[in-house]
Amino acid sequence: MFFASDNGSPVPPEVLAALARANEGYARGYGADEIMAHVTARLREIFEAPEAAVFLVPTGTTANALALATFCPPWGAVFCHTHAHVAEDECGAPEFYTAGAKLVLVPGAHGKMTPETLAPVLARTGAGGVHSVQKGILTLTNVTEAGTVYTPAEIAALSSMAREAGIPVHLDGARFANALVATASSPAGMTWKAGVDVLSFGGTKNGLMGVEAVVIFDPAKAWEFELRRKRAGHLFSKHRYLSAQMEAYLAEGLWLRLAMHANRMGGLVAEKVAALPGARLLHPAQANIVFADWPEGRHGPARAAGAVYYDMPAEPRREAARLVASWCTTEADVEALIAALTP
Amino acid sequence: MFFASDNGSPVPPEVLAALARANEGYARGYGADEIMAHVTARLREIFEAPEAAVFLVPTGTTANALALATFCPPWGAVFCHTHAHVAEDECGAPEFYTAGAKLVLVPGAHGKMTPETLAPVLARTGAGGVHSVQKGILTLTNVTEAGTVYTPAEIAALSSMAREAGIPVHLDGARFANALVATASSPAGMTWKAGVDVLSFGGTKNGLMGVEAVVIFDPAKAWEFELRRKRAGHLFSKHRYLSAQMEAYLAEGLWLRLAMHANRMGGLVAEKVAALPGARLLHPAQANIVFADWPEGRHGPARAAGAVYYDMPAEPRREAARLVASWCTTEADVEALIAALTP
Amino acid sequence: MFFASDNGSPVPPEVLAALARANEGYARGYGADEIMAHVTARLREIFEAPEAAVFLVPTGTTANALALATFCPPWGAVFCHTHAHVAEDECGAPEFYTAGAKLVLVPGAHGKMTPETLAPVLARTGAGGVHSVQKGILTLTNVTEAGTVYTPAEIAALSSMAREAGIPVHLDGARFANALVATASSPAGMTWKAGVDVLSFGGTKNGLMGVEAVVIFDPAKAWEFELRRKRAGHLFSKHRYLSAQMEAYLAEGLWLRLAMHANRMGGLVAEKVAALPGARLLHPAQANIVFADWPEGRHGPARAAGAVYYDMPAEPRREAARLVASWCTTEADVEALIAALTP
Amino acid sequence: MFFASDNGSPVPPEVLAALARANEGYARGYGADEIMAHVTARLREIFEAPEAAVFLVPTGTTANALALATFCPPWGAVFCHTHAHVAEDECGAPEFYTAGAKLVLVPGAHGKMTPETLAPVLARTGAGGVHSVQKGILTLTNVTEAGTVYTPAEIAALSSMAREAGIPVHLDGARFANALVATASSPAGMTWKAGVDVLSFGGTKNGLMGVEAVVIFDPAKAWEFELRRKRAGHLFSKHRYLSAQMEAYLAEGLWLRLAMHANRMGGLVAEKVAALPGARLLHPAQANIVFADWPEGRHGPARAAGAVYYDMPAEPRREAARLVASWCTTEADVEALIAALTP
Repeated sequence: MFFASDNGSPVPPEVLAALARANEGYARGYGADEIMAHVTARLREIFEAPEAAVFLVPTGTTANALALATFCPPWGAVFCHTHAHVAEDECGAPEFYTAGAKLVLVPGAHGKMTPETLAPVLARTGAGGVHSVQKGILTLTNVTEAGTVYTPAEIAALSSMAREAGIPVHLDGARFANALVATASSPAGMTWKAGVDVLSFGGTKNGLMGVEAVVIFDPAKAWEFELRRKRAGHLFSKHRYLSAQMEAYLAEGLWLRLAMHANRMGGLVAEKVAALPGARLLHPAQANIVFADWPEGRHGPARAAGAVYYDMPAEPRREAARLVASWCTTEADVEALIAALTP
Repeated sequence: MFFASDNGSPVPPEVLAALARANEGYARGYGADEIMAHVTARLREIFEAPEAAVFLVPTGTTANALALATFCPPWGAVFCHTHAHVAEDECGAPEFYTAGAKLVLVPGAHGKMTPETLAPVLARTGAGGVHSVQKGILTLTNVTEAGTVYTPAEIAALSSMAREAGIPVHLDGARFANALVATASSPAGMTWKAGVDVLSFGGTKNGLMGVEAVVIFDPAKAWEFELRRKRAGHLFSKHRYLSAQMEAYLAEGLWLRLAMHANRMGGLVAEKVAALPGARLLHPAQANIVFADWPEGRHGPARAAGAVYYDMPAEPRREAARLVASWCTTEADVEALIAALTP
Repeated sequence: MFFASDNGSPVPPEVLAALARANEGYARGYGADEIMAHVTARLREIFEAPEAAVFLVPTGTTANALALATFCPPWGAVFCHTHAHVAEDECGAPEFYTAGAKLVLVPGAHGKMTPETLAPVLARTGAGGVHSVQKGILTLTNVTEAGTVYTPAEIAALSSMAREAGIPVHLDGARFANALVATASSPAGMTWKAGVDVLSFGGTKNGLMGVEAVVIFDPAKAWEFELRRKRAGHLFSKHRYLSAQMEAYLAEGLWLRLAMHANRMGGLVAEKVAALPGARLLHPAQANIVFADWPEGRHGPARAAGAVYYDMPAEPRREAARLVASWCTTEADVEALIAALTP
Repeated sequence: MFFASDNGSPVPPEVLAALARANEGYARGYGADEIMAHVTARLREIFEAPEAAVFLVPTGTTANALALATFCPPWGAVFCHTHAHVAEDECGAPEFYTAGAKLVLVPGAHGKMTPETLAPVLARTGAGGVHSVQKGILTLTNVTEAGTVYTPAEIAALSSMAREAGIPVHLDGARFANALVATASSPAGMTWKAGVDVLSFGGTKNGLMGVEAVVIFDPAKAWEFELRRKRAGHLFSKHRYLSAQMEAYLAEGLWLRLAMHANRMGGLVAEKVAALPGARLLHPAQANIVFADWPEGRHGPARAAGAVYYDMPAEPRREAARLVASWCTTEADVEALIAALTP
């Protein structure tokens, strides 16, 4: 009954097997391994982007921070949702990597900004000329922190506003696979066709040990990214162990299957939690993350029964929770959770 | 016949097995996993340092840069050997992490600074008061970039000069195990007993996939280090996979056995290369790295025969090479190398 | 009829005279001039702070950014009002100088935060442990950007919350003299007695060419500040020309007389603007800055008549303006302005 | 008898008069004053560079650091002479402003690098690909720290090596006027015609209170420079007082006359010191700075007689000194100095 985070999960056997296979003999380091060549080719194919540059890094924070630093100057504003991971959960990594860019918060219900919430923030930023931080980059998160999902059309609408403002677009896809299967979109449709310049393509939350890809659709920035990655200590000498995991992840649609399962379990949690007496979903549950609240008095018994999840600030006399399903959540886990939460 | 670098090697079966064992069920993330508690306890035991703070990071560059940033202010001078890894091979990671500290180079034969070469550099740095970069930190590398080894007494002599100057001491131990077995020293004797404040304790070059420990002997700096690690994207959500590798590395002396083997193979290479016609060792070969030169004309045939190693700038009519043995180098590899290099 | 900003004013004759007096013979540079010794002694006396460290810098942005960098770590949150100068008018200088601290905005009517608006922001910042930016520093502005003034008691109430949270307090006193005379406070009462650790003591807006003092009440941070100032290029070789201006400013209460006059003119503007048909003050006008709006149609004629001021976003069918008086505003200027704004 | 530094001097009466003239009425701030328009036009004329961007900043350290940051990325190497001001006297300002670039030292006799000393440093920097700091920018100083002068042809020879390496060239002209009159060069000939991309055009050491111009010959970088200047707190609100000084400096050749006088006095010092018993010039004295040594025993009596200068490390039984003449050094000063130094 572990619903605390998708990154508390183990990795699927395919990943361990890939590590074992990669562990043969000597290999060139620092990204020059043969497996990485396959990974790059495969991601270009998946994204229909034959020129895209692909880099592996170990954490999502790194993927985001390096991407932002490569595309936004130190005096730029990073437009992100009020509750974006980059704003709330990275201890200032974007500020560190960009040498001091300013995160400018864009509000919006259920974790999503909209053209209406973005427009005034875009308009006023940089209006003071040299006295102001300048418009820098737009970063969206999909799946959002609220467990909702942007459609490609929604991304395109926001991206086109960025384009008009003369700034690039980053997509934090720590849960990109979950967003994709939730919207039945294509990887290209969700990214460059919707105006995304650089993508953090998550692997860790969806089954890898600690591997994310950064996909840069315009390769002109590739060399700068490489230097920034090295300089940050994120270029692995024994790079093959990152490559092997990502190769296994992409092989035979494993990444999509894992996400589909996680989303299906998320949907099951949402459905069953919503049916609990007095319970409500706090955000539409569109992927593998469920936010709900219920009358107070269930946290204690549920935990005593072995349920693990984060509680959230709640209204008086109510309790709220974030419940995250993952690739390895079982229906039995969900049943047990619901039983534990049932008064 | 792979002698290009110890980080071209695979990992020993113990490490793969540990990953498989760690891959059971859910685990707390971000360093709060149970295996990490064992790792910390074990390293404290090994270093006879019950208060030491221990952190895992994925690369040696990270370990060094985070350690330096935690112990040296932006206006500090980082005293390092002219050919130190931090100066030559990290694309400016120390400058990035410290927010602009200055690496001040200390010369010395065979990769080692001495009290005589350090003294004048220490004396003149900061002499201009507010106009000068201030004395910041001393960083030593053991095994050195030249394949030589500092004894604990040599480290202590340099450390005491740092202490007098009011600055702390960092030890880049990317090949710490190799240095230890080369000198038959104790971990404590090579570090805090010799005046070292913070250690980059290498695992990757000696058999792990990408795991280094940073050991901070004075825990007052631990929280700052944690924040810096997180902010740099080096705090792993699925941290157990780092912990498991390090636990296997430390168990039953595996780390020392691997290093002993690598050093023995390094010694064999040195002995046999030195016996080649016209060949010379360029530095005393004290661990697993051998620098040698010989009359020109061997690079081509050796490579044709399958030998892989880095060549170096050489004197006229001579060729030079760096040859690195690792935990998985075999005597047969050495024989084959020597055969390939024999005119 | 210049009401655009107090920094559009010239300097009073006392300042020019001081520069001429200081221009005799040779002088020691970099703050070691004799005049600076007098300035330090005088400011210590004025602030009843015999240990305070005093530094001169040329701009308010510099004073603020260096003060914040000295007292807040890169992973710290700088708590400031939503419309603080550090947040809106310095092009990210605090982020640059602190190596990436995050400005966390605290709302509040009329440019002032209150214990009620500060408390929730303080409480939630850093709540995520290592994943969060940590509580760093509280910075208040007096006179505020809205032309209102904090009393010493209000500052003390906010400071004590910072103290409880374990963080220091900075006061942006670009218009410190105006705040002081507006509240009839003593310099000590407005600062260290109210819990302020470091003060940007403005001179430029109140009559100097470009000189601000930073007053650090706990001298333990003085050396770090000096290094940061030098490293930022803000240590003047011919420092005497800064010292001389500040000495003249402090002599015989000139700084207070200039501010009193500016405030009196500001009060006159407020009174007369408020009496215009349909006009309203948007914020209480407590010092030398007046925000007002009126029915649309006056901007054009007023400018045609020679009035210079900033317009502001306004409600439909209304026009809004910021009107700033300075040490050299005359009653005739005010009369002319009012005539120009009268329909 | 003040020979400690040219920045210990007062300012000539023309500068005070210009400040008084500029102190009339209100003026637009932040560089938009009318006097600045004249300064820009005049410098473009002087440099035969009608497109050049011109910015004023208060110190030479600022001019250098902002110029380097604008033209060199954080992972770049700044090639400078071993004893360059940027390397030795700015407390790491270039590292701070560039977000961690590395100063790579180029040796050379008498403060000057040569094609022969630059070539190997250029060749080896960046040779390690992504592991290395990349070639970033070449910075030359004229007048050098040793009091010698580069001719335009020498600058052109070094610049063309930078150009071949794909990097821009900065000239630290803190004493640009002195270099110009020493070589009878034209401003354009010494700069863009010799391959210089950006110039720190000094005013402070040659008679201003604290004003330097940065001249950017390719205006594409102008906006970035403006943002960096603002962000660093170096954009003056009452900018007219910088403009006025620079305007006076450029009017009727004042800057060249001041430098000519300083150089003539420097020449006189050199000639007379060299004639002292047992004395030697340590570097060719080509501008206003003289390095000399003599048999020990003169420092004490000279100082007792009122001579002020810096002593330098010297050979056994000898004393060494740096003697700097300025725009206001008189022949009588020189005579008195020589008398004081005569055994």
